[in-house]
Amino acid sequence: MRSIKLMTSGLALCVASTAWANDDLTSKMDDPAQWVIQTGDYANQRYSELDQINKDNVKDLQVAWTFSTGVLRGHEGSPLVIGDIMYVHTPFPNIVYALDLNDDGKIIWKYEPKQDPDVIPVMCCDTVNRGVAYADGKIFLHQADTKVVALDAMTGEVAWEVVNGDPAKGETNTATVLPVKDKVIVGISGGEFGVRGSVTAYNIADGSLAWRAYSMGPDEDILVDPENTTHLGTPVGADSGTNTWEGDQWMIGGGTTWGWYSADLEENLMYYGTGNPSTWNPAQRPGDNRWSMTIMARDIDTGEAKWFYQMTPHDEWDYDGINEMILTDQEIDGQPRKLLTHFDRNGLGYTLDRVTGELLVADKYDPAVNWTTGVDMDPNSENYGRPAVVAEYSTEQNGEDVNSTGICPAALGSKDQQPAAYSPKTEMFYVPTNHVCMDYEPFRVSYTAGQPYVGATLAMYPAPDSHGGMGNFIAWDNIAGEIKWSIPEQFSVWSGALATAGDIVFYGTLEGYLKAVDSETGDELYKFKTPSGIIGNVMTYQHEDKQYIGILSGIGGWAGIGLAAGLTNPNDGLGAVGGYAALSDYTALGGQLTVFSLPN
Amino acid sequence: MRSIKLMTSGLALCVASTAWANDDLTSKMDDPAQWVIQTGDYANQRYSELDQINKDNVKDLQVAWTFSTGVLRGHEGSPLVIGDIMYVHTPFPNIVYALDLNDDGKIIWKYEPKQDPDVIPVMCCDTVNRGVAYADGKIFLHQADTKVVALDAMTGEVAWEVVNGDPAKGETNTATVLPVKDKVIVGISGGEFGVRGSVTAYNIADGSLAWRAYSMGPDEDILVDPENTTHLGTPVGADSGTNTWEGDQWMIGGGTTWGWYSADLEENLMYYGTGNPSTWNPAQRPGDNRWSMTIMARDIDTGEAKWFYQMTPHDEWDYDGINEMILTDQEIDGQPRKLLTHFDRNGLGYTLDRVTGELLVADKYDPAVNWTTGVDMDPNSENYGRPAVVAEYSTEQNGEDVNSTGICPAALGSKDQQPAAYSPKTEMFYVPTNHVCMDYEPFRVSYTAGQPYVGATLAMYPAPDSHGGMGNFIAWDNIAGEIKWSIPEQFSVWSGALATAGDIVFYGTLEGYLKAVDSETGDELYKFKTPSGIIGNVMTYQHEDKQYIGILSGIGGWAGIGLAAGLTNPNDGLGAVGGYAALSDYTALGGQLTVFSLPN
Ligand SMILES: O=C(O)c1cc(C(=O)O)c2c(n1)C(=O)C(=O)c1cc(C(=O)O)[nH]c1-2
Ligand SMILES: O=C(O)c1cc(C(=O)O)c2c(n1)C(=O)C(=O)c1cc(C(=O)O)[nH]c1-2
Repeated sequence: MRSIKLMTSGLALCVASTAWANDDLTSKMDDPAQWVIQTGDYANQRYSELDQINKDNVKDLQVAWTFSTGVLRGHEGSPLVIGDIMYVHTPFPNIVYALDLNDDGKIIWKYEPKQDPDVIPVMCCDTVNRGVAYADGKIFLHQADTKVVALDAMTGEVAWEVVNGDPAKGETNTATVLPVKDKVIVGISGGEFGVRGSVTAYNIADGSLAWRAYSMGPDEDILVDPENTTHLGTPVGADSGTNTWEGDQWMIGGGTTWGWYSADLEENLMYYGTGNPSTWNPAQRPGDNRWSMTIMARDIDTGEAKWFYQMTPHDEWDYDGINEMILTDQEIDGQPRKLLTHFDRNGLGYTLDRVTGELLVADKYDPAVNWTTGVDMDPNSENYGRPAVVAEYSTEQNGEDVNSTGICPAALGSKDQQPAAYSPKTEMFYVPTNHVCMDYEPFRVSYTAGQPYVGATLAMYPAPDSHGGMGNFIAWDNIAGEIKWSIPEQFSVWSGALATAGDIVFYGTLEGYLKAVDSETGDELYKFKTPSGIIGNVMTYQHEDKQYIGILSGIGGWAGIGLAAGLTNPNDGLGAVGGYAALSDYTALGGQLTVFSLPN
Repeated sequence: MRSIKLMTSGLALCVASTAWANDDLTSKMDDPAQWVIQTGDYANQRYSELDQINKDNVKDLQVAWTFSTGVLRGHEGSPLVIGDIMYVHTPFPNIVYALDLNDDGKIIWKYEPKQDPDVIPVMCCDTVNRGVAYADGKIFLHQADTKVVALDAMTGEVAWEVVNGDPAKGETNTATVLPVKDKVIVGISGGEFGVRGSVTAYNIADGSLAWRAYSMGPDEDILVDPENTTHLGTPVGADSGTNTWEGDQWMIGGGTTWGWYSADLEENLMYYGTGNPSTWNPAQRPGDNRWSMTIMARDIDTGEAKWFYQMTPHDEWDYDGINEMILTDQEIDGQPRKLLTHFDRNGLGYTLDRVTGELLVADKYDPAVNWTTGVDMDPNSENYGRPAVVAEYSTEQNGEDVNSTGICPAALGSKDQQPAAYSPKTEMFYVPTNHVCMDYEPFRVSYTAGQPYVGATLAMYPAPDSHGGMGNFIAWDNIAGEIKWSIPEQFSVWSGALATAGDIVFYGTLEGYLKAVDSETGDELYKFKTPSGIIGNVMTYQHEDKQYIGILSGIGGWAGIGLAAGLTNPNDGLGAVGGYAALSDYTALGGQLTVFSLPN
């Protein structure tokens, strides 16, 4: 009952303040000169109307200015620009800088939280942070240790702070937050530590708790209405968050929420995906393990679930479902549809009706994917919406202590957290992908709070019989379910893409290149070697009539964990160290912002 | 007698190998496409014949590529370019990278020494390193812990290594080495730990010791010939390195050798300066404290001293004499002269005849200098060559535990290690300077090996009644002893300058700007904000017919010690923290190479 009470008080506050928070934020979001939340907009399209830099002149791009963050290791996310100020964040210790765009990036203020470094070993995949967000004159930082801090955007002074989780139990944070209406939505990490995932809404005004929705557990914890919350059109029924688990395993069930959040204000819905069930040893958790690996649509004000779609029931490969949900309004068969497109770790590109949760398309966006033959699309089938698992690549069927080899994609998926972009001009999605396969040997593991709860040994390598590289940058048609073009890359593309009205798409590479390609053809138009490998996301803004492109460099993340954490044993870093060992021939640790523009 | 024996064996080897070592190195040094030792050439002119980038087109300069070193804190020195390979070094832990200029800076090899981090607290002024040097197919690295390593330039494999000192006694290294003929000359740091300074020559072939010359001590230690080694034209006589010290104080007498080295192959002489006498409390070491604070000319093969000139007898302000000696061939009164020009920490610009050690010019190169009224230039005076000390600013006369205030320059001098450049086209010296004054309170301190042996409390601040900033970049006429022009800077210019045949001079600023100015007028022609504050030295090279400019960013060094070491108490960092506190409004820690070129 606790969560229901909180929900109600949240609602009360909400009525008082919805209007102002929203108008200020959405109007800034609509202004292409600014970049106010990490995803660019609520639709997570990562598309900019700016077209001063375009496919004809992008070859002349120059570095305009640069800024070292003073921190090494993986730099995910991107800077924000609100008015004349740029906000730059760092990995742990999660410093935030406010830089004056009118004064060559002079530091207006710097906020450096004091965090216990004990949180570092509890972070599965580097000390990354996917960035701050703006709303209501405040900058929201969600620290590694799960403290959520609201900073006055002008002075850097703390307006409020609240603690969302407990690192001693393996609860940490790497995600950005989503400010929407009068709330700020935050997730949690720790799927590799048996954390039970949840999404929490705090009131922007004072940081008080509005609602919390767990990924698994009793109905009142997961905020479902058994009769009205649907899965592929059917009500989920009572106890859906516990009845596909054995015993109390759901209590340490994973399904963390460390990815991206999108929202449709018209529908009053927010969207996100949940991560892998814990442990990685599937034999220890019989059942579908709902609602891990699930796309969720929830009411923004109350958190109540409207619909779910579980992509990978009973995960056997660590294919977290947390990748971004990109919202588009497109026509299908002449009918305007409100769509949600999602490139899952499991290698399938999904298109759904975001209002109803109806599954429209589920197709492989990397031909290397081999663990499934595809999703059953027949609404009348009892397997409707389920992927058919290929026995050879089933780590459950092969059993504990057996090494299943040649599984594609690897655990880090055909795509991981690196967000794709969408251009309404081309109606294509630009997807940074991994082209990596793995060997996976599950083993029995016991749970101790705050200790790794992984239960599998992995090795990773480039997809065999292909171009030899570990990544592709692709253009995807979400209605046909087809790759339009594909650019082979030596390493996974671990950077977020940006599409612009200048008919170009930008992305970064793990070697450190910023690249610009033609959005129609994929032809390379520009590249520049930034100081360190790129796992940040490309953003753009305009200042004094000039368009700029900004990107953070700083090798790390799961793909770069070998360099970031100084690991050399190939199986370390959950199997990534060996696969990406050659990265050290190209780049070293860094932490820099590079800003580009056209010559004067 | 030990050192004499070693000298002889050194000489034997030398005869066998002089020719080849020298020819390879000097021919590369003469090739403006390459940058083979830190100082550019043996004359330490930091001048390049390259003129593709010139005063008309430098405004179009662009960032060509960048590289993060993976290390934070102060980045002094510069990369080298030998053939198609660039060599980049870092501060502690002193990583060396070989980057392939034909393949976008791909890492050919990386050498990362294992060093005990206990050396860090024994380094007085940040964990800097002034760079590697090339000779004989090897890259020479002198690590913080005083290990000298010869690396195969192609593979990075260790050819030999030798240990020069003992960090447990406060002996460390920050300096580059000078490969000359068949030897590699190395210095030592630790003046703030009572180290007795020395210069050591190792044989390039195998790292065996050739000779070692201490700065003070018995004649056989300091390698003087009492009859033939001169000071201002007069033989130094017997025991010159002990008879101006009380008791055994010379044994912990300082005079370290952490600066730059130059050489005149024709004269077979090498030149350098010695540092402050220990302690900083002058009352504890009566006498002139020879040969601290001294310019030294030594025979390259034997180390034997030809002449000395002590600039600051009985130092009372920490005005180390280690700044570079710039060798030029110029006319004075129609006569060609072999000159040595030196901008000392004490604020005087000296011009000497480098063959004889005759003092020609000694004038203030910052009008703020107030501790002396000038040097007695009368050869017949008993004070010939001595600076006249102004009583008010004499920390000795004011006494122990008395705060002498308003002394200009501050301990870090009108110039510190940041090397000046000389253009033979303009016959002007381009000098990065400090414009900082101090309060200095000496106190009694006792010596414990490996513990700080400082004995003074300092505060630093911008020169009063001036432009408010802490630095100037000046052009100097070394024959007239006159400032030609002076560019005020907000902070000390802690970066080394570069002059080119394109009639431009480059330097970096502590805020992080690379600047290019007109070598005749000082007019600013270009500036660019690099990722972090610059204390590195600008270098240039040519690759495939294109001229490039390279600079390391990474705030630190003595001026940036507050940021580098995270200190905030104004008196910390030997007084520098308070003076440079405002730096944190402009820059954060970094470690990046930025390479510039003209657009294609
Ligand atoms: O289950 C989790 O809680 C969790 C957290 C994180 C994270 O917070 O970074 C990652 C993952 N899982 C994960 O599976 C994964 O592939 C991953 C990649 C990265 C990254 O930033 O590169 N983080 C994470
Ligand atoms: O006396 C010494 O041994 C010694 C060593 C060093 C050094 O090795 O960096 C500096 C100094 N002194 C010194 O006086 C000084 O001003 C200084 C500045 C710097 C620098 O790199 O910024 N090092 C040193």
